[in-house]
Amino acid sequence: MSRGGKLSGFPEYLPAERNVELAVLDHLRRVFELHGFANVETRAVETIEQLTRKGEIDKEVYVLRRLQAAEDGADAGMGLHFDLTVPFARYVVENAGKLVFPFRRYQIQKVWRGERPQQGRFREFTQADIDIVGEGTLPFHFDVEVARVMAEALSGLPVPELTLQVSNRKVLEGFYLGLGLTDPTAVMQVIDKLDKLPGERIVELLLELGLEEPQARQCLALAEIRSADTSFVERVRGLGVEHPMLDEGLDELAAVLGAGAEVEGVTVMADLRIARGLDYYTGTVFETRMAGYESLGSICSGGRYDELAGDGKRTYPGVGISLGVSRLLAPLLADGMTSTRSVPSAVLVALADEDARAAGDAVAQRLRARGIPTEVAASAQKFGKQIRYAERRGIPFVWFPPAEPDGEHTVKDIRSGDQEPADPDAWTPPATDLRPQVVTPEGDRT
Amino acid sequence: MSRGGKLSGFPEYLPAERNVELAVLDHLRRVFELHGFANVETRAVETIEQLTRKGEIDKEVYVLRRLQAAEDGADAGMGLHFDLTVPFARYVVENAGKLVFPFRRYQIQKVWRGERPQQGRFREFTQADIDIVGEGTLPFHFDVEVARVMAEALSGLPVPELTLQVSNRKVLEGFYLGLGLTDPTAVMQVIDKLDKLPGERIVELLLELGLEEPQARQCLALAEIRSADTSFVERVRGLGVEHPMLDEGLDELAAVLGAGAEVEGVTVMADLRIARGLDYYTGTVFETRMAGYESLGSICSGGRYDELAGDGKRTYPGVGISLGVSRLLAPLLADGMTSTRSVPSAVLVALADEDARAAGDAVAQRLRARGIPTEVAASAQKFGKQIRYAERRGIPFVWFPPAEPDGEHTVKDIRSGDQEPADPDAWTPPATDLRPQVVTPEGDRT
Repeated sequence: MSRGGKLSGFPEYLPAERNVELAVLDHLRRVFELHGFANVETRAVETIEQLTRKGEIDKEVYVLRRLQAAEDGADAGMGLHFDLTVPFARYVVENAGKLVFPFRRYQIQKVWRGERPQQGRFREFTQADIDIVGEGTLPFHFDVEVARVMAEALSGLPVPELTLQVSNRKVLEGFYLGLGLTDPTAVMQVIDKLDKLPGERIVELLLELGLEEPQARQCLALAEIRSADTSFVERVRGLGVEHPMLDEGLDELAAVLGAGAEVEGVTVMADLRIARGLDYYTGTVFETRMAGYESLGSICSGGRYDELAGDGKRTYPGVGISLGVSRLLAPLLADGMTSTRSVPSAVLVALADEDARAAGDAVAQRLRARGIPTEVAASAQKFGKQIRYAERRGIPFVWFPPAEPDGEHTVKDIRSGDQEPADPDAWTPPATDLRPQVVTPEGDRT
Repeated sequence: MSRGGKLSGFPEYLPAERNVELAVLDHLRRVFELHGFANVETRAVETIEQLTRKGEIDKEVYVLRRLQAAEDGADAGMGLHFDLTVPFARYVVENAGKLVFPFRRYQIQKVWRGERPQQGRFREFTQADIDIVGEGTLPFHFDVEVARVMAEALSGLPVPELTLQVSNRKVLEGFYLGLGLTDPTAVMQVIDKLDKLPGERIVELLLELGLEEPQARQCLALAEIRSADTSFVERVRGLGVEHPMLDEGLDELAAVLGAGAEVEGVTVMADLRIARGLDYYTGTVFETRMAGYESLGSICSGGRYDELAGDGKRTYPGVGISLGVSRLLAPLLADGMTSTRSVPSAVLVALADEDARAAGDAVAQRLRARGIPTEVAASAQKFGKQIRYAERRGIPFVWFPPAEPDGEHTVKDIRSGDQEPADPDAWTPPATDLRPQVVTPEGDRT
């Protein structure tokens, strides 16, 4: 990564690293669009009123002021968005009359938080969100769809193994109600700490909430259940607690797991520790861990909101997931992930002398006309130097136009050294050489 | 456009409009990458010191402050970038040791200016810049390349006719020096106003600068020369002024015109009014006008800098052009430009009843596997309602899975009403229906 910068928390990538990010963003977009998600961009700026509506995150907001404006000038009420959910909820309400519901959208943008920078935490970072929002109602099958689409998106990423952990608030709340507990939210907020605290400490905290020890142990037992198939249902049943909301939650969670199991390349796991205690979810909840990078916490989270947005007259229920693209990529780039080249060019056209530039440009145009990114040598140095110029950029092929008008074009693969005759209107590089490929920290190309 | 917003100057698009912007951005990226330009993104934030280095634009900068921070807290020295040139110059100097020169980059990002909003002026808008930067030196042929690449990019846009106007500071300065004038920059800044003031007023202003009337009339005559071919050279020669810098400028400008003439679909014109008086250009300069939208001013401008960046030890000459994507698109969208649909989906899979959802999902996956964006009906309403659901989104095809396991799939083009048997592993929509198409204000699809 670019290391000369003075502004900590604002990462910038070198071109070869940016190619990794572009490959990831292109893949996400392709999957989201194949599933009919429309793209939306919202302005970077929201009113402070919108940004502080939930009241918890206000100290992290960056407020704007014009350099020459009076302190309480016209722009004083605006700040940069800290996520893509608040802006999307506002956009839905503002444009409800022009949108068609249920509305599937994806949104890939920078967000800003005035946090103290630390590993995996940035002040500027990219998120990729998908949400489906309904007007008044939104059937449960959209929870299954969102899980499936994000699982497909995650499965194609050139990153270590990802596990999408799914739970359902109705399972937890129904279970707690079946146990006779009266404040399920308080219990959930304790269970949510199971990642950071040992089970015995969780039991102590639950006892402090006023639970009997058998109740607390049942809550802990529930939270420790996980499975990559629907076997979790029997294990929950085995705890002997009954409640109609529990039944509904188990049915929903089993449906999400069933769809997730069909997606190869990513593990979708029921994990009843996942509660997302401080957020306003009402059913399905999601988190995601990356193997070897567990300390990052969840890199992709979300769930079902019964009220994603509302305008007093109507409510807009939604279900969605937000992928932290920067949080996912920054540690991998720091560990050596890169791409095969720093430029898009697959071919460098070499020049015998500066008078050959017009002919070289014409060859390049013929290659570009067939979709092959091509650049022409910056100067007519010795061919060895021009090959070195390609090497330094990772350009795999050097093209030699003929020295005489009727002569033969040749193209050299500078990795193997093989040089062969080639027709500028027919030659095509191998598909894997057409664009930069991602190289994992282990050196694998994907 | 979304009109409910309260923040003037921060445009937001509805999904069908965003599809227009995406089509434009995809086209730009494709052209830039075919020519070997690498993508870079810089952080949204620069130090106030960087942003105010040129000293002219400081009142338009948005400064950041954390909502809960003390007035002169740690973030007080940062503001949002107002263009992509200042951040790129900083990026080049910071990363000079890791970049390979000459370095071609494109950058497509939002920028922010605290201006009073008015037609064609926004507080948040998207720019698309290309630049080529050298270390120490940068041969002139890169000016030709940048002109050609941007001309190609402009030529493929679904917008009214664009004219790329090219001039060269050396032509103007050489001409003025040949006339015996001592302050060419002051003359250029007057000539730059020829768009807004009549010729006679320009002559008056030149006389106020101390020019003799014949000199002033010669300057005006030069500024009135324009041609879509290299015939401007003879017309300049016809004015009878001689200077070595003029000769060099005419050669350069003729070379840019020659390359521009090869690009179809855009007019590249030598226009000696173009001086870009307040900027630090040293040779080639560019502006661009859109037919019928001349009041917008230039929507794509740039030129050659002998010192794009410098760090005290080295200088980095550059040549580049910046396209105002929002400035170009916002008035066209306001005039009715849109796209054929609000979703990426080319196909809606209809459901006979809710039990058919799993089979419908499976059909959709088979279509997606071949790159066809597909969604499944939100609910198993009557088929007429499901067709209406597709119509409201602009989805051209509705797919009907068979009622019985061995039955036949059919697909209906809801525009023509034609319904035909189809194989989910073989059927493909016409290429023009695969993605949303841009519809111009006149109703043409591109």
